[in-house]
Amino acid sequence: MSSPTTFHGWLAHDKSAANGTMTWSAFAPKPFNPIDIDIKISHCGICGTDIHTLRSGWGNTHYPVCVGHEIVGHVVRIGAGVTKALKLGDRVGVGAQAFSCLEDGCEECGKGLEQHCAKMVGTYNAKYPDGSWSMGGYADYVRVPAHFAIRIPEKLRSEDAAPMMCGGITVYAPLVANGAGPGVKVGIVGVGGLGHFGILFAAALGCSSVVAISRRRNKVADAKAMGATDYIATSEDAKWARTHARSLDLIISTVSSPDMPLESYLRLLRTGGQFIQVGAPEDKLPRIAAFGLIGKGCKIGGSQIGSPEQIEEMLKFAADKGVRPWVQTRSMKEANKSVVEMEEGRARYRYVLVNEEGGGKAKI
Amino acid sequence: MSSPTTFHGWLAHDKSAANGTMTWSAFAPKPFNPIDIDIKISHCGICGTDIHTLRSGWGNTHYPVCVGHEIVGHVVRIGAGVTKALKLGDRVGVGAQAFSCLEDGCEECGKGLEQHCAKMVGTYNAKYPDGSWSMGGYADYVRVPAHFAIRIPEKLRSEDAAPMMCGGITVYAPLVANGAGPGVKVGIVGVGGLGHFGILFAAALGCSSVVAISRRRNKVADAKAMGATDYIATSEDAKWARTHARSLDLIISTVSSPDMPLESYLRLLRTGGQFIQVGAPEDKLPRIAAFGLIGKGCKIGGSQIGSPEQIEEMLKFAADKGVRPWVQTRSMKEANKSVVEMEEGRARYRYVLVNEEGGGKAKI
Repeated sequence: MSSPTTFHGWLAHDKSAANGTMTWSAFAPKPFNPIDIDIKISHCGICGTDIHTLRSGWGNTHYPVCVGHEIVGHVVRIGAGVTKALKLGDRVGVGAQAFSCLEDGCEECGKGLEQHCAKMVGTYNAKYPDGSWSMGGYADYVRVPAHFAIRIPEKLRSEDAAPMMCGGITVYAPLVANGAGPGVKVGIVGVGGLGHFGILFAAALGCSSVVAISRRRNKVADAKAMGATDYIATSEDAKWARTHARSLDLIISTVSSPDMPLESYLRLLRTGGQFIQVGAPEDKLPRIAAFGLIGKGCKIGGSQIGSPEQIEEMLKFAADKGVRPWVQTRSMKEANKSVVEMEEGRARYRYVLVNEEGGGKAKI
Repeated sequence: MSSPTTFHGWLAHDKSAANGTMTWSAFAPKPFNPIDIDIKISHCGICGTDIHTLRSGWGNTHYPVCVGHEIVGHVVRIGAGVTKALKLGDRVGVGAQAFSCLEDGCEECGKGLEQHCAKMVGTYNAKYPDGSWSMGGYADYVRVPAHFAIRIPEKLRSEDAAPMMCGGITVYAPLVANGAGPGVKVGIVGVGGLGHFGILFAAALGCSSVVAISRRRNKVADAKAMGATDYIATSEDAKWARTHARSLDLIISTVSSPDMPLESYLRLLRTGGQFIQVGAPEDKLPRIAAFGLIGKGCKIGGSQIGSPEQIEEMLKFAADKGVRPWVQTRSMKEANKSVVEMEEGRARYRYVLVNEEGGGKAKI
């Protein structure tokens, strides 16, 4: 097993990339460091962040870029300085983070919160300390520090594990951190890629209620099939905020629209309830009255992906509980088309690109 | 010992009351219920909420009203249904809450969170279930359910205990609930009545840093004398948000201005930090970027006074640690003047009205 000196991937060249103008091109990966591994990619999920980045929605993207950070593949090269127990041929996943300082003295890395390290480098569109730019998983290979590659449990299919690496952990981590489990009533705002994971995980964690919250009622059947016990359609159910007032302990908001009815969501919380935002709007959140937080002792928080340790825990949990996301596999060749359809909201509920040449199978 | 059928107090008749137009008048207290006690008032602190209420700042006030909810006095009448161990002559305090349902099945009362009970009745300007209106402590007597009267430890002076009943517990409760103590770096926004309690309690709790955050530097000496280890003046220190970025675990915000630099305050938080708002602005909070919460896994919360149990715990803590607020006593006769000076921001740091006829001593 080995890796080439030149990788190939779908490169975005400007803001039009979200409209399907990426080109399959050769690119030079970052210099190989002793702590790095190379992975031959078999699968890569399409995440909302890919779209934001392709169109420079969160700030100027460094083009050309190869996006994709829900990667699964096999280890084909291991640096001499890698201490993690990995061997050639291992099936691993890589999520949205590729690097952190990992120094003992680091406030974040020292506590297993690598995703908040000030030196955090994203899996694409981010600069490593050596000045090279990270390139993601719409590609044949990816090169990353071994610390951020997680072995996939045998029971999990690659196309199911891939979208867990970012979409899954983004909702799993705040659910667990904020006590989701028996006796806890959870709401999930948005029934999309992230939201469907929220419903699946909240149900698997044994939450007493799992309420799917979406604009329209068109996803009721799907949400119930995923494990939702109730459903609120904010643009179709009259007086929903009053009807369901004080009914939830924890809300995970996966939507990224800045015009969300935030004050109404807060009405849904019980005393001491929490609203955790994981979808990042390109604009600011709406204003809220302080009384909305004070009167019930509520909190609004944010959560960002998860650490390698949390990802490992999630994968084990998913394997043990048989959590299976709703994915639609697409050939890696169809990346442009898939990105456009993702942006149109047509995914039910996650597209996963399959690299047949990397060992992936297009249709299962 | 007994209580009269008619009480007397400073009655506000319209919005001008905050300008000093209250009149000392007779009023009929609420009907005496078996769970009630009457208290002969010796002291009553002047709280910011009094001013908001006098001028209808948080919505239309029900005039005439007698404000004041930092009350200390002696029990002079006990209802036949009172189960709490209280006897005539006991020195007790009453804070901002006078009633809750106290039913076992109540989600809040059942968990000792009376202050969040949906049937919560404030100590003034609020309606009891029997339709009568609550009247506060700028008066000679107050009538409340015994559950909300807390015995004052012997070591605490009445003029010190009075402002703890609202101002003190409002900051003590969120400090304790969010882990303030050794190893924890705390910021207190606003060096006023609430803020000065924040500094005193954070220091007494042994927090590693206690940073006072105010607009100007004019309170540096006072804040340091209260126990602050550092001071930030947001309109005088250049680039303060950058200089002190990622330095605090917990911020308690006692200010009630809607134009607070909320995003800059969030920059001060370390990973996983929390910003708890206790001062209630009359307008909404400013908009913030979701990234401000997501990037560091931070939370913004609110907290509202504290339960009788928490107040009792705070009073014991204050007595044990010798926490002594900075109060300025005024004769009850000077209520109008004191309210005006409070509104002008002249209190250093809490005015306490002393009812000489109720056993209080005007000057100590």
